[in-house]
Amino acid sequence: MKTANDEHYMQMAVQEARKGQGRTSPNPCVGAVIVKNGKLVSKGYHKKAGTPHAEINAITASGSVDLAGATIYVTLEPCSHTGRTPPCCEALVSAGFSRVVVGMTDPNPRVNGRGISFLRRHGIAVDTGLLEKRCVELNYPFIKHVTQGTPWMIMKAGVSLDGRLNYQAGKSGWITGEESKKEVHRLRDVVDGIMVGSATAIIDNPSLTTRLNDKKGKDPVRIILDSHLAVPLSSTIFNQESSAPVWLVCGKNVSNEKTARFRDKNIEIIQVDGDENGLDLRQVLTVLGKRDICSVLVEGGARLHGAFLRKRLYDYAHLFYAPLFAGDRGVPLVSSFEVKDRESAPRLEHPQMKRLGEDFMVSGKILYP
Amino acid sequence: MKTANDEHYMQMAVQEARKGQGRTSPNPCVGAVIVKNGKLVSKGYHKKAGTPHAEINAITASGSVDLAGATIYVTLEPCSHTGRTPPCCEALVSAGFSRVVVGMTDPNPRVNGRGISFLRRHGIAVDTGLLEKRCVELNYPFIKHVTQGTPWMIMKAGVSLDGRLNYQAGKSGWITGEESKKEVHRLRDVVDGIMVGSATAIIDNPSLTTRLNDKKGKDPVRIILDSHLAVPLSSTIFNQESSAPVWLVCGKNVSNEKTARFRDKNIEIIQVDGDENGLDLRQVLTVLGKRDICSVLVEGGARLHGAFLRKRLYDYAHLFYAPLFAGDRGVPLVSSFEVKDRESAPRLEHPQMKRLGEDFMVSGKILYP
Repeated sequence: MKTANDEHYMQMAVQEARKGQGRTSPNPCVGAVIVKNGKLVSKGYHKKAGTPHAEINAITASGSVDLAGATIYVTLEPCSHTGRTPPCCEALVSAGFSRVVVGMTDPNPRVNGRGISFLRRHGIAVDTGLLEKRCVELNYPFIKHVTQGTPWMIMKAGVSLDGRLNYQAGKSGWITGEESKKEVHRLRDVVDGIMVGSATAIIDNPSLTTRLNDKKGKDPVRIILDSHLAVPLSSTIFNQESSAPVWLVCGKNVSNEKTARFRDKNIEIIQVDGDENGLDLRQVLTVLGKRDICSVLVEGGARLHGAFLRKRLYDYAHLFYAPLFAGDRGVPLVSSFEVKDRESAPRLEHPQMKRLGEDFMVSGKILYP
Repeated sequence: MKTANDEHYMQMAVQEARKGQGRTSPNPCVGAVIVKNGKLVSKGYHKKAGTPHAEINAITASGSVDLAGATIYVTLEPCSHTGRTPPCCEALVSAGFSRVVVGMTDPNPRVNGRGISFLRRHGIAVDTGLLEKRCVELNYPFIKHVTQGTPWMIMKAGVSLDGRLNYQAGKSGWITGEESKKEVHRLRDVVDGIMVGSATAIIDNPSLTTRLNDKKGKDPVRIILDSHLAVPLSSTIFNQESSAPVWLVCGKNVSNEKTARFRDKNIEIIQVDGDENGLDLRQVLTVLGKRDICSVLVEGGARLHGAFLRKRLYDYAHLFYAPLFAGDRGVPLVSSFEVKDRESAPRLEHPQMKRLGEDFMVSGKILYP
């Protein structure tokens, strides 16, 4: 039986889950809230793969409270299998919960409804699908990775009103303002990987680290796609302090002598097959997925954006528009990507807009026709 | 002495003024509200050049009410000179108003504070500058035209996320959705002129008329810039019913034989000098200003947008973004326009955003560095 406060508590569980975003891969981020006799008992969230799940953290936080007859709100279906930790479903039964409210079913083929059946078989009332959309949005990366084996690919770019990434091709040139930059660092903080093509790495010479003002951020793995290893060893990315490694992805035909120079600097080299346009991007994603990279923020440039759209490999976009005109000598947002007409254009599903100072961010899932 | 209700009544006057928008050129649109003993007496607005001003319409609408001691709210300083109608200031004095609240001073060199001085000399209390920003925004076209002699130039375009006007250069292709199209027709309804370049006229073959769902719209004068008269006589724009004329602007070197074919169809030909990139746009604007065209919506294409930006002749922009990618075979928003860096980029001042279905509109005054 659903109660008026169900949404309130599930929303609280969603907020708990968010605390783990970008830190739980390959696990989902999950939040849990325990309520007994209409009163909040405790909360918990999953912090990191290999550590206790949200439900267990919430139970632990409840201390000496007798949980018999209590309700637990969980953003994701409790697990029924033994992974690196024992199954949560058993713990819920042991604790004596009389009701479990679930945000979304776990798409993990090893769970996928089995957790809910287990609970019901043990006499626990289970309601599912509460705030499901928000729970799904929390775990786009996990869902994609656990069902397809590849990371959730996020297109990111700072663009002028006329769709340019800079003012003069071949020269670095900032488009967006300070508020947008801050938002980019918040995005970097919650993804597993950040990716750029070699031209961007060479021209912009970025650090690709996370710099937050208010708290310590987490650097994502920094991934450079560079068919021929053209990025100089002197680049910032290879020579700065970061807790995250740099992975350099190049073609299989690059000489050992060349790769050795990077390996000597503790840079990991990943060699993949090429295709007609450069590296085989599907193969790149498969390799990243196998390494438990569940989400990647792709920061350009135009050629990489064009290639990911062409191959329908982008899942989501965060586009930051600055209210200025950059002119037609600038690099366009996407290159080498042809669209026939409106019907065949990739589009954002229900795009969200957010104002960032004078800039505005447009975000949404990318749908391919 | 300002009262708490002043803003309320001035806002009402602004709403009145809006009813005349796009219909009063070369006059401003003006609204007036009369209040006596804290009660609304009547309202009025200026409907068309040559007809009574807002103040007079409000006085007429007050009927038999004795206006001695009443207050009138006017969005623009009342006129002190005899134009096509006698000066409103004298009418306000005769009617016995004790207070006049003015939104903005009339920038018309023949008024420019003289109305306010006149009223004060006749013992009327005058407050100025109430909701001034809104009153100014109402009359961007009038202000530009009366002070500079040229029309308020508005850039308008439907753009993809990657800054393209269509999918394949040389082919027509709609980018934006239904809600955006409706908004475009609302914009057309309140401007004096609508302008396209010859390439757009040829490729899109538009009608450039105003089609509103809820009320009868007003077609603006349809202006085509076409250096060599390349647009075929069979184009829709020359062959459809419209209450508004078509003005075809071409170079002075176009033969009489060629222009005669258009003149025979009652199309007005305006010949101007050329410059290195086509027609001399400053000369075009001067001609339009002399013809009392106070505002022009420029609907493209890329070359015209680029030229207006390059020559710093655009005053305002309405850009409609559809949440889709059009690819790099599409025509970019602006062409032949080069920007060196962020500091030299034209930008929108405090851009406004408006959601239109899945599209979003970005609007603002264009500032040049």
